[in-house]
Amino acid sequence: MNDHTAKQFDEDLKSLSEMIAEMGGLSEKLVADSITALLDRDVGLAQSVIATDKAIDALQHEVEEKAVLTIARRQPMAVDLREIVAALRVSNDLERIGDLAKNIAKRVMALEGQLQPPKLAGGVDHMSELVISQLKDVLDAYSRRDAASAMEVWRQDGEIDAIYTSLFRELLTYMMEDPRNIGFCTHLLFCAKNIERIGDHATNIAETIHYLVHGEVLADERPKGDLTSMTTLTYAEGR
Amino acid sequence: MNDHTAKQFDEDLKSLSEMIAEMGGLSEKLVADSITALLDRDVGLAQSVIATDKAIDALQHEVEEKAVLTIARRQPMAVDLREIVAALRVSNDLERIGDLAKNIAKRVMALEGQLQPPKLAGGVDHMSELVISQLKDVLDAYSRRDAASAMEVWRQDGEIDAIYTSLFRELLTYMMEDPRNIGFCTHLLFCAKNIERIGDHATNIAETIHYLVHGEVLADERPKGDLTSMTTLTYAEGR
Repeated sequence: MNDHTAKQFDEDLKSLSEMIAEMGGLSEKLVADSITALLDRDVGLAQSVIATDKAIDALQHEVEEKAVLTIARRQPMAVDLREIVAALRVSNDLERIGDLAKNIAKRVMALEGQLQPPKLAGGVDHMSELVISQLKDVLDAYSRRDAASAMEVWRQDGEIDAIYTSLFRELLTYMMEDPRNIGFCTHLLFCAKNIERIGDHATNIAETIHYLVHGEVLADERPKGDLTSMTTLTYAEGR
Repeated sequence: MNDHTAKQFDEDLKSLSEMIAEMGGLSEKLVADSITALLDRDVGLAQSVIATDKAIDALQHEVEEKAVLTIARRQPMAVDLREIVAALRVSNDLERIGDLAKNIAKRVMALEGQLQPPKLAGGVDHMSELVISQLKDVLDAYSRRDAASAMEVWRQDGEIDAIYTSLFRELLTYMMEDPRNIGFCTHLLFCAKNIERIGDHATNIAETIHYLVHGEVLADERPKGDLTSMTTLTYAEGR
């Protein structure tokens, strides 16, 4: 790469970073808004989440095209290629996070008019706070290329999974106690699963930061704590 | 691109296609196996699905690296870049399909020993057959660069969504009828949602084929038929 190409390459990278930062800001906002909409049963806010998700999808395609054009034009070296592969991966995870927030928002519409056992909101609230802070931290870590902070996010995902598992059991119990809770709790189960998966994508971004900084894939298995797919809560237990 | 580079580029593309074909074959097998495991309650088969999913993840990273290196080395023109962007997108969708099959397999473990209302399997079975045939058709369309066949897959996704919506209502009804069904039906709800999302990814691949062949993004909105997030089945309705 000559000086001129190197300068253009740096500009390309900068513009990629700006697009990712924009996607990151949007996705943080969508996650927070979708959960506020869920907790406050705010249909108008839910609708705005659904509309804004399209902007994230469009940005992801822009990142993809910009990344590919940058590689084709500047022929970067291995270390610089990593920057671009990382941008592709992060934008992918952010796009999925936007989708998950959109799914939560869609459920808010479904819940309109249904009775809500007030106790339930507590578990969702606590879990969401953690996920939102994980997402914020990992996006900060990405913008600072800070692998150590990213690893902290990576390690904390187990806590979210533990809250999800206990919330899952709690919701099943409510359903068993009173069948009138079934409709509401089913939607809440899907919302909780979506929030848990947003946490997984924050963890993926942490892995991408590790790869970007250290040039190698994380050797450890990710701390995997969502045990609900293994959960068998019988009727008797639920009483 | 000179003749030599062009030849190398063709070889790179061929090797990308082979990786995608391998991913496609694996993902078809995982989807079929995970559903067989669910319907037959076959824990051994479920475990093999979970193990095989890692191979798809590894292939996706290989496709990503190969794609990026190909662009950097051969500096393809716009039309050839599309081939590579399409490979990236398709491998992404196939990786997600593998994940969804793995999630179904994990639920099979959870269901071990639980009573199963036999009627329920029917809806899952029918939906799965459609999804598996959609996946097969769209992968064939990709290998033949056949945009017309891809569009057929794209149009048929609405049918899967309709079956899912009716299955969702049916499962809620069973839960309301007898709380002992709640544990089982909840897992089945998540499985059904995963199958429906596999259909969505087949639709995404169809959109990528359209983009690859015609060089433009599909203007139409995708036929979106999963209305369950909008479904409010009250206790009274369910009886």
